[in-house]
Amino acid sequence: MRGAVLYGPRDVRFEERPVPKIIEPTDAIIRIAATCVCGSDLWPYRGLQPIDGPTPMGHEYCGVIEEVGSAVRSIKPGQFVIGSFATSDNTCPNCRYGYQSSCQRREFMSQAQAPVLRVPLAEGTLVPTPGMPAADLIPSLLTLSDVMGTGWFAADAANVQPGSTVVVVGDGAVGLLGVLSASQRGAQRIIAMSRHPKRQQLAREFGATDIVTERGDGGVARIKELTKGIGADSVLECVGTQEAMMQAINTARPGGYIGYVGVPHGVALDGEYLFFSHVHLHGGPAPVRRYLPDLIDLVLNGEINPGKVFDLSLPLDQVAEGYRAMDERRAIKTLLRP
Amino acid sequence: MRGAVLYGPRDVRFEERPVPKIIEPTDAIIRIAATCVCGSDLWPYRGLQPIDGPTPMGHEYCGVIEEVGSAVRSIKPGQFVIGSFATSDNTCPNCRYGYQSSCQRREFMSQAQAPVLRVPLAEGTLVPTPGMPAADLIPSLLTLSDVMGTGWFAADAANVQPGSTVVVVGDGAVGLLGVLSASQRGAQRIIAMSRHPKRQQLAREFGATDIVTERGDGGVARIKELTKGIGADSVLECVGTQEAMMQAINTARPGGYIGYVGVPHGVALDGEYLFFSHVHLHGGPAPVRRYLPDLIDLVLNGEINPGKVFDLSLPLDQVAEGYRAMDERRAIKTLLRP
Repeated sequence: MRGAVLYGPRDVRFEERPVPKIIEPTDAIIRIAATCVCGSDLWPYRGLQPIDGPTPMGHEYCGVIEEVGSAVRSIKPGQFVIGSFATSDNTCPNCRYGYQSSCQRREFMSQAQAPVLRVPLAEGTLVPTPGMPAADLIPSLLTLSDVMGTGWFAADAANVQPGSTVVVVGDGAVGLLGVLSASQRGAQRIIAMSRHPKRQQLAREFGATDIVTERGDGGVARIKELTKGIGADSVLECVGTQEAMMQAINTARPGGYIGYVGVPHGVALDGEYLFFSHVHLHGGPAPVRRYLPDLIDLVLNGEINPGKVFDLSLPLDQVAEGYRAMDERRAIKTLLRP
Repeated sequence: MRGAVLYGPRDVRFEERPVPKIIEPTDAIIRIAATCVCGSDLWPYRGLQPIDGPTPMGHEYCGVIEEVGSAVRSIKPGQFVIGSFATSDNTCPNCRYGYQSSCQRREFMSQAQAPVLRVPLAEGTLVPTPGMPAADLIPSLLTLSDVMGTGWFAADAANVQPGSTVVVVGDGAVGLLGVLSASQRGAQRIIAMSRHPKRQQLAREFGATDIVTERGDGGVARIKELTKGIGADSVLECVGTQEAMMQAINTARPGGYIGYVGVPHGVALDGEYLFFSHVHLHGGPAPVRRYLPDLIDLVLNGEINPGKVFDLSLPLDQVAEGYRAMDERRAIKTLLRP
């Protein structure tokens, strides 16, 4: 089979790779229905995160089980499944507390930008849908593997409640799905920070009530103005830069909550500044597995349509163009079909 | 009158000062029943925090109202009151959300190591006791002004619940009262980190179930061992140094909570490290005003006796010795009586 491999900055190749096989008795092999390019893939793609030689890419996936290891009993070949970007046994203490993305046996998935994928800890990691989903639901189901689950975690970590005033920092796919998540959780006001007309429009479709185009001090001032000088109850930080984190800290009200889900790159927080800001801070790799059953229901019931973030759909063999389009911000998120 | 003034490192003088008078119509003047030296006073005392010329010291106080400004109606001369180290109008949005120590009109108190004190925003800041308290309750009531309220906030911010496993970093008065707070909130296991026999003993009296003497990696390893490799549900960080904060982050379980109340001095948090730790972080200057009514009840009902942290009681004119004893760790906390 062929799969995507990153060789260096802006050098993604679609090349021959060994077909994955069962290695551990807890593994499953799935045939990918759809995969995609993640905002976090752009860090190494842009050379901003070092790679250790040629690196098979992709960690978002859904598809049909082809084979399971001898220890796998609760799921079986033929089932359509979605799994998290982080594997989990779903039984260790961290998993039982709902932090499956810190499972004591966690592995971060890779190699999903390919037609066939090996998933370790398959019983704990994969969640089957009740039956074979309609083809038009596959993009939305795919988002649950990471980007929608991550937006949802941002809203959860930021304690979004019915009636909350919410700010979303970042207009990438995670930020946009953070808007959708906040809306779904009953937020009254959702302020999306975006300068990009197409993303602003999608933010509004997902439930944003206000758009702020200013950044830095200007952005903070504008949000203070919109919130009568108080600041937001909840801020979703969906970027991972110092600027975005400071934007979040400076726009949350004292006692407000920040959910941060962009993997921090070069972020350093001054303890004293954070102390006097009086904010709550919680984030990390999203425990997608915790949310999967409920989010699958929401998609299958037609209550959410997170698949709208895919504004570019390509055959998997054009994966390099999928990266380019996102890198150049021509696409919000690229869906890839094997 | 005479009051305590810090002139420079380890130079506290008890010297003539003007008697405070009503300045704003929202002020009250109180006659101090007791005051004390705070752990945070030791930062400038030790020269670790710059001062801008001679600085009148003290921000913990309780006593009897002597006079109120013309706008003060809900409290009156003759009442015994306790107030927070931070003033608050108790009506602004931040106050209404329970973050009175970020009141939009907040001032940090000073000049309380004196027989008479002016308290701004008196109606919002001061809470009267139902009647004149018995003399033996005054030390405990005094702690509610800061140190006990701060320990309580640490436990609240760290989400201590009935059954929780709690670690307390710091064996100063705040840490010890953090132990008491965790115990009062129903924690099942309270691990106090302390190397000091007298403080260990008081921690046990306040409800600590385990003492850990190791620090750094050894301390982390010991706590992991005590918690079956999982880490603590809640960690109270009651110091404010980089070492203490890292101790807290490294001993909380993924999804656990850190309540940090030591004013950070030189603390810098690596965003990526914090992200993958998966902890909740909340802290800041304790919103003591929020807790005062309930904590006054607990003291008056004899349910808590936080005044036990005062292991040295001096006449106010010996304030310099009070600082020395704490600086040299001969005393946990010094009570001063005018």
